[in-house]
This record gives sequence, C-alpha cells and structure tokens, in this order.
Amino acid sequence: MATLVFKFGGTSVATRERIAAVAERVADAAAGGDRLAVVVSARGDATDRLIEEAEHTVPRPRARELDMLMSTGETASAALVAMAVSAHGPEAVALSGIQAGVVTDGVYGRGRIERLDPSRVRREMDAGRIPIIAGFQGLGPGGDMVTLGRGASDTTAVSLAAALRADRCDIFTDVEGVYTADPRCVPQANKLDAIGYGEMLEMAQLGAKVMQHRSVGIAQRFRLPVVVRSSFVDSPGTSMMAAEAVEIESVALVRGVAHDTDVARITVRAVRDRPGLAHGIFQPLADHGINIDVIVQNLSEAGTTDISFTVSKADMAAAVDLVRPIAAEIGAGDVSADASLGKVGIVGVGIQSTPGIAARAFGALAEAGINILGITTSEIRITCLVAEAEVEHAARTLHTAFGLDADSAQ
Amino acid sequence: MATLVFKFGGTSVATRERIAAVAERVADAAAGGDRLAVVVSARGDATDRLIEEAEHTVPRPRARELDMLMSTGETASAALVAMAVSAHGPEAVALSGIQAGVVTDGVYGRGRIERLDPSRVRREMDAGRIPIIAGFQGLGPGGDMVTLGRGASDTTAVSLAAALRADRCDIFTDVEGVYTADPRCVPQANKLDAIGYGEMLEMAQLGAKVMQHRSVGIAQRFRLPVVVRSSFVDSPGTSMMAAEAVEIESVALVRGVAHDTDVARITVRAVRDRPGLAHGIFQPLADHGINIDVIVQNLSEAGTTDISFTVSKADMAAAVDLVRPIAAEIGAGDVSADASLGKVGIVGVGIQSTPGIAARAFGALAEAGINILGITTSEIRITCLVAEAEVEHAARTLHTAFGLDADSAQ
Repeated sequence: MATLVFKFGGTSVATRERIAAVAERVADAAAGGDRLAVVVSARGDATDRLIEEAEHTVPRPRARELDMLMSTGETASAALVAMAVSAHGPEAVALSGIQAGVVTDGVYGRGRIERLDPSRVRREMDAGRIPIIAGFQGLGPGGDMVTLGRGASDTTAVSLAAALRADRCDIFTDVEGVYTADPRCVPQANKLDAIGYGEMLEMAQLGAKVMQHRSVGIAQRFRLPVVVRSSFVDSPGTSMMAAEAVEIESVALVRGVAHDTDVARITVRAVRDRPGLAHGIFQPLADHGINIDVIVQNLSEAGTTDISFTVSKADMAAAVDLVRPIAAEIGAGDVSADASLGKVGIVGVGIQSTPGIAARAFGALAEAGINILGITTSEIRITCLVAEAEVEHAARTLHTAFGLDADSAQ
Repeated sequence: MATLVFKFGGTSVATRERIAAVAERVADAAAGGDRLAVVVSARGDATDRLIEEAEHTVPRPRARELDMLMSTGETASAALVAMAVSAHGPEAVALSGIQAGVVTDGVYGRGRIERLDPSRVRREMDAGRIPIIAGFQGLGPGGDMVTLGRGASDTTAVSLAAALRADRCDIFTDVEGVYTADPRCVPQANKLDAIGYGEMLEMAQLGAKVMQHRSVGIAQRFRLPVVVRSSFVDSPGTSMMAAEAVEIESVALVRGVAHDTDVARITVRAVRDRPGLAHGIFQPLADHGINIDVIVQNLSEAGTTDISFTVSKADMAAAVDLVRPIAAEIGAGDVSADASLGKVGIVGVGIQSTPGIAARAFGALAEAGINILGITTSEIRITCLVAEAEVEHAARTLHTAFGLDADSAQ
C-alpha cells in the first residue's frame, strides 16, 4: 500500500466534466488500495479573475486582503472536488491550507512554507477518508490566509508529500510531462521519461512552466519521487529523481532547452568598485522578497563598474524604487530598467565540466544572428540573455544544435 | 463617540460602484468620530451561484463541503470591501467569521452562534482600524467553516453588536425600511418609522424579507437598537426598539401584514390520540434542525386525529422521510405533503387581547372569497394558511381591512 500525493492544476479542475474526471481518477487509485492525499489549485482562470476584480475595486489592493480574496479560489476548488470524489464512492474531506497544517512565514502574496504539520491529514487518511487540500495557501499572522505565490500549489503538494513521507507525488497537469523544450515554441520537442532534480530545477528557473521551481527544490532536498503527468491522457509522464538514476537511463548530455520572456534588466551605472558593494545593493531587494536571477558585473575600468541584474517584470518597478536611493547614497550613476529582454538556456548534468558545450551554444546563436546580452552558468546550466523578440528563435536554434529535435537520435 | 455596527447586504455590495458607495459611507461615519465594525454578505447572487455550481458538480453536495464553498462568497466580499474602505482613507482590515470570534454549534448549513468573542474585533477598533467582517460564517468542528443559514449575515451583525455592547446596529439593505406590507405585492404599503422587536419578529417569521428572524430575536434579547435603512437612499429608515417605546409613538394596533409562499404542509392521518404523540413526531424533526411553523391538530373523533404542520419547502422531502417511519411505528395512517400553500398574517402588539381583530381578519378574507386552511395565533400575530395562489390577494385584502393603505389615515 503506497502513500501518494496527487496534485491537480487549475486546468484539470476548470470544468464540471474535468472535476468528474479527477474524481474518477482519485476513486480508482483509492480502489487500488493506495493511501491518498490530494492538493488542488483554483479552477481555470479563477485566480486571475479575483486579482482583476480587486484591481478594478481599488488601484493598489493591499496584499493582506488580496491574499484573503485569492485564497477563496483554492478553497472553493477543494470543496467542489471533495464533493465530486465523495459522490464517486470514497469518502473525501476538503481542508483549507490552514486545516492541512501549512504554516507560512507570514509574507502576504509570496509566503514560504515554514513548516507543515501533517497530523490532521494523516488522521483523515487513517480514518479512511481522502483529504482534498486547497493548495497555494497557509496560515499567517493572526489566523490570516497567506498565499504562497503563483504556481505554489505544487509547493503545497511536494511539501505535504515530504511531510507525510509519501512514496510519490504525482503532479497532474495539462501537458504529458517534461519536454526537451516548450512544445508550443519548439514543435520538435520530445517528452523526457526521466529528469534529475537539478536539471528540472534549472529548467523551471529558466522558465519551463511545468512545475514551480520552489517545489522542485523541495522535492530535491527530500529526494521525493515526483511524476509529472497529464490529467487528460493516460500516459506514464516524466519521472523526477536523483541525477545518478537519470544518468543511467540516458546518455544525452544536454537534457533540454528552456526559455522565459518574463525578464526585466536593471542597470546601475558607474558604481565605484569596493568590497560589500553588491551586498549593499542586493540585500534590500532580498529583504523585500524580490528574486534576482542573472547578475552581470562588467570588469571595472578607472575604478568604476556597471552592475546589471534581472528580476521578473512584475518586480521591476519595486526594484528600481529600492535601488535608486541606494545608488544615490553610494555615489553611483543613473539607474535604468529594460523590460524587453528574455532568457534562453540549456540544461544537463555535467554541462559545465564538458569542454565545448558552451562554445557550441554561443556558436549556434551567433550563426543564427542572435546577439547575447549576458551569460550566466551553473554546474548544469548555461543561460543567455537575449532580446525578448529573439527568445523563441534562440530556443529552436539551441534545440536543434544539441540534437534534441524529435527526428534526431537521442 | 458611538460604537456602531453596520451591516451591508448582498445587493449593497453587488457591483464595484456599490462597493465604492459603501466605502464612502463607512469612511464618512468614521470621519464623524464613530467607532465602527462592518459586516458584509456575499455579493449579489454569489451564494446562489456557488450552490448551483455545487449541485451541478454532484446531485447532493455534502453539507460540510457546501459550507466551505459557500463561505468563500462572504470572505471575498469582506476582502474587497476592506480594500475599498482603505482606499477611501481609514485603515480597514478584513476578517473571516472565524477571525471575528464567531463560534457556532457546528451544524453545517444552519449553524447557530454559540458565542462570539469580540476581542479581536475590539483590538482592531482600538488600534484605529475598521474591521470588515465576513457575515454568515463561523467556526465549526476541527477549524471548519460553518454557515449560519440564509440571510444570517444579519445574525452575525446583531450578535457582534450585542457582544461589543454597541450603541446601535444599522442594517443597510435595498429597501428604505420596514413597511406595513411588502410593497412589491401591496403598492399601498407605508414605511414604518418605528417597530417593536416582537412585531418585527412576527413580521420576519411571517415571511417579511427585510431582516432574518433569528437576528431580530437576538436584538430583542439584548434590547439592541437596530435601524433598517437603505444603502442607496439617504433616509432615516425604520428603528426597531422595545414595544413600550413604539406604542407611545404609534396608535396603530395592527402594524403590518406579512406573507410567505415558502410553505409546505405535511399531514399525518389517523393518529391515535395519546400523550407524548406530538413529541414523538416533532422531536426527530427538531433533532435534524427542521423548523416547524404552523401546527394544526384536528379535534379527534373515534380516538384518532389528523396532525398537520408546515415547514419550508426546502425541508419538505427530509421531513416526510423522517415522519414516515414514525407514522408506521405508531400505527398511524398515511403521510402526505402539499407544497402549494402560503401564509399571510397580521402583526401588532395587543392583537390577541383586543376583541374583534381576529373576527375582522377572517371576515375580510371570507368576503374576498379566500378559503382559510389553517390558523395560528400568538400574542401579537394572527396567521392564516391559504392556497399559494391566493396569498398576495389575501395580503392586499388584510392591508386594506386594517386601514394600512397609503391613503388611509394611519
């Protein structure tokens, strides 16, 4: 008897018919003898509609009340799915994130799970009921609902699976698994049977929409087996596992290409180069929960340097507001922002330690006439900043250059 | 500096423009120096849409999950109104029913407020913030949301006002106050400046839609001044107060006519008349939270009697299911149900003790050709069961007969 956590995304519960299909799948798994807990997202575009409603009510809705409003999307979804599962046979019980034991750090709109006490969920499972849990939400100060950021129902599911020491977490979504690139942009993309946690993390960070990157990090830390699979098609999906296991199954060095157009670059010019400088600029951003992605610092000439970094477009205005007074304080030059960028990258274990990979990537992009505006690398990833308009072309170019196209031998 | 509780119904917060108007009214009252707490209902027909969604997902949604689903309507409403109030100046803070200290008896779908701990609400007010509270919901077992039954945001508001020892509770709604009859049915109806708690209670029980009857009972118990007024028009509304105060202001004996078409009658035939019989039939209904309204027991002949009672139409099927096995057990005849009834009644302090009132009511109905199918009376009310099709005609007839029409001297 395996303990499994299922997570169904917004498209999987968007309509009554889809909820019925989800209920059937859950009932089937329960009938097969597995112990189940289920995490659900808000239905379809419910979250977007709630945000829109708030923004039409007031221009700048407060984060605390926005969280209370947004959390109703997942709460309603959990209630409906629980009703549907119960109607299919097994007894189900809907739980809010708070009831499911999710405790956040209390940062409205982008809360992190500080701990997850699975005792209530376990008690329901022990009593033969299937808990249906509202994802994306947890306990904040004074009993408040705090949401965990976009896509964070994945985080709820993976955290719960880790807390329950589940045998597996299945992420049901609207695609059949993890692909070598986004099939909407690169038609030759192939589905991967397996992918390492680290590779998946880099793919997610690079903009692959399949799983929220924080949830991948949690799965990696707990070495939790995760399967990304379709809630519409009955196919095996992609298994996420430790890299050693993946490498045995696959000889491909470059596992995939990912891209993202949600990139804004902020540049601080003529910064006097001295120790602690980067800390002085980046700590305030971190304090405000703004994630910094690519950092490019030019080699200094005449004692000054330009520092560029990228953030998501939603954070651009806030980041500029934070950085401007700091730049003035340290006697730097002007602060500029550019939202017309994107990033594209290749991911695979051993990329950095294999000679020639980076050169091949840069060469392919150059040959395609694509200008590289910044580069970062990690052990298993090479990322290039390019103009937003060239992102998709760059992704297709790299996909072909590394032999990932469907007609290539993989 | 008065402490006031405002309650805004669903139509008052149905659109963005109306939410803005509510926010302005709240901000104005706060600027005037009053200490405020605000209770809101779900927006427009949100509750109906949620129920519909549930019933389309499964034919018989479970009460626990239906409560979780329905409660999202008020939660979203409170969040949006709090955002709007904050944008108008004063700081507002949205609270769920649970956060506002509402503790229910745990009966899903028709919970009663067991206690209300106002300390969190008071703390927010002390800190200069206006709490905006989701009505209709409260704490149930295991942290569950329990809803309080249709229209019960009034109950939340009045209970909160009582717990805060507020100076007044203002019920803002889509009508200008309490009328001598429903103006949609009786065009000659007049707005009352004042009404006694008891009269209002009978009006509400008789189907007057202005305020939920349970909330009137609570106001009466705590002798809480309540004003029913329009959220659209700036007019004084109707003040609810102790009968002594009303009687001084008004000489009218019959204060109003109310009617209700949500009436179903269940009849148990050929019941052997013996002590404890009514208890045996009605206790199980009470245990299931089904309210019984009019009870008619025919005088027994040959040792048996027919017992009829009325329930709301929504409870009819459940009531029949409960009563049938009992009837079989006690050797009674068949159990039948009839949903084609309505009730109409007159309300006023001293009605029963004033000779001739009942006779005048029955005479007027007889003259209008309306058949009376059952009668109950209380100190301040006379109710007649009539065919559903004749309810409105009966209401107009009684309104005229007791001199309540607009052109009559009141």
